[in-house]
Amino acid sequence: MTVLLPRRLVDRNLPEHVSPVPLDQCYRLMNHGPTVLVSAHHAAVDNVMAAAWVCVLDFGEAPKVTVVLDKATRTRELVEASGRFALQLPCVAQVALTVAVGQRSAKEMPDKLEQLGVPLFRVPGHDLPLVQGCVGWLVCRVLPEPHNQHTYDLFIGQVEAAWADERVFRQGRWHFDEAPDGLRTIHHVAGGQFIVAGAMVQG
Amino acid sequence: MTVLLPRRLVDRNLPEHVSPVPLDQCYRLMNHGPTVLVSAHHAAVDNVMAAAWVCVLDFGEAPKVTVVLDKATRTRELVEASGRFALQLPCVAQVALTVAVGQRSAKEMPDKLEQLGVPLFRVPGHDLPLVQGCVGWLVCRVLPEPHNQHTYDLFIGQVEAAWADERVFRQGRWHFDEAPDGLRTIHHVAGGQFIVAGAMVQG
Repeated sequence: MTVLLPRRLVDRNLPEHVSPVPLDQCYRLMNHGPTVLVSAHHAAVDNVMAAAWVCVLDFGEAPKVTVVLDKATRTRELVEASGRFALQLPCVAQVALTVAVGQRSAKEMPDKLEQLGVPLFRVPGHDLPLVQGCVGWLVCRVLPEPHNQHTYDLFIGQVEAAWADERVFRQGRWHFDEAPDGLRTIHHVAGGQFIVAGAMVQG
Repeated sequence: MTVLLPRRLVDRNLPEHVSPVPLDQCYRLMNHGPTVLVSAHHAAVDNVMAAAWVCVLDFGEAPKVTVVLDKATRTRELVEASGRFALQLPCVAQVALTVAVGQRSAKEMPDKLEQLGVPLFRVPGHDLPLVQGCVGWLVCRVLPEPHNQHTYDLFIGQVEAAWADERVFRQGRWHFDEAPDGLRTIHHVAGGQFIVAGAMVQG
């Protein structure tokens, strides 16, 4: 008799292929410098913007990130009001979406996410809009630093949870070579031009 | 009669292929998230270390960067003493060098740069050791922020001059497809494993 067992337990709260990333490994999602989507939520309003100026600040058990959020953005208002944000890594299949949420502001297009058709999901316990189809997600709490925020538009976040698309990131490593090229991360240069994550080399 | 003219004026103070990058374009050297080498100089001592936690903070006429410098590093001591540092972008051909200067500390190996054979050059007017063979260089002045430096190991630099290897970066854009693959930027994941800058996509 053959007993069929699932290859792994499926978490019904997460989209297909999305798996938790241990906090002490989450810096590896961002260490190679991908462009991100920043999302936030406050008072029943969601928003998502694009950002290339994002960086790991610390790893270990209390991982931290920095992100530059322009004063003109609605997302920044939501981050300041809620003290929380999510970073997520768009992939090649999402280049058009990334450019669109980066160019259009919810200040001029209040229903921006609906008009642009940005697909969202939520993870119970984290009231933040997460963008479906990305390959990594980090949910962060703002560590308030008013001088940095005012002078440099620089926000520091402590990562509270992270997930990744297990087809391209598992056991703390990227595996782009073993998945469709559409799942590779994208790295903005300027004017909607991106460099795609390429081959791996070991030093 | 044919008159042969040089394709461009050669600056005898710069290594072959190295050209100035206008300040308002220098953020494009780092926007796609490459790993860098950080160099500094003080009191006749040079040092170079590797850093993946580096980011653009501002562009325009007063471009700024952030870089995380661990308290245990000799390079940080030189940066704090001199108020200056250089960031430079190593390429695929320099993976081994990048890992070596990242793993070995001048605190245990005082003649680290000589032992590792790190080739340096200097540009008149900027007393900083620059690593030959990189594909981009940014010379920065520290904007002192003691709280950030102490609490987060986070340094803010204002870029004062920049250069790039014109075979891969010119007119504000990367042209990796038109040069040897050894000149592509490298993006550290962990443990000496890097992702290489790949194809371009336009959104």
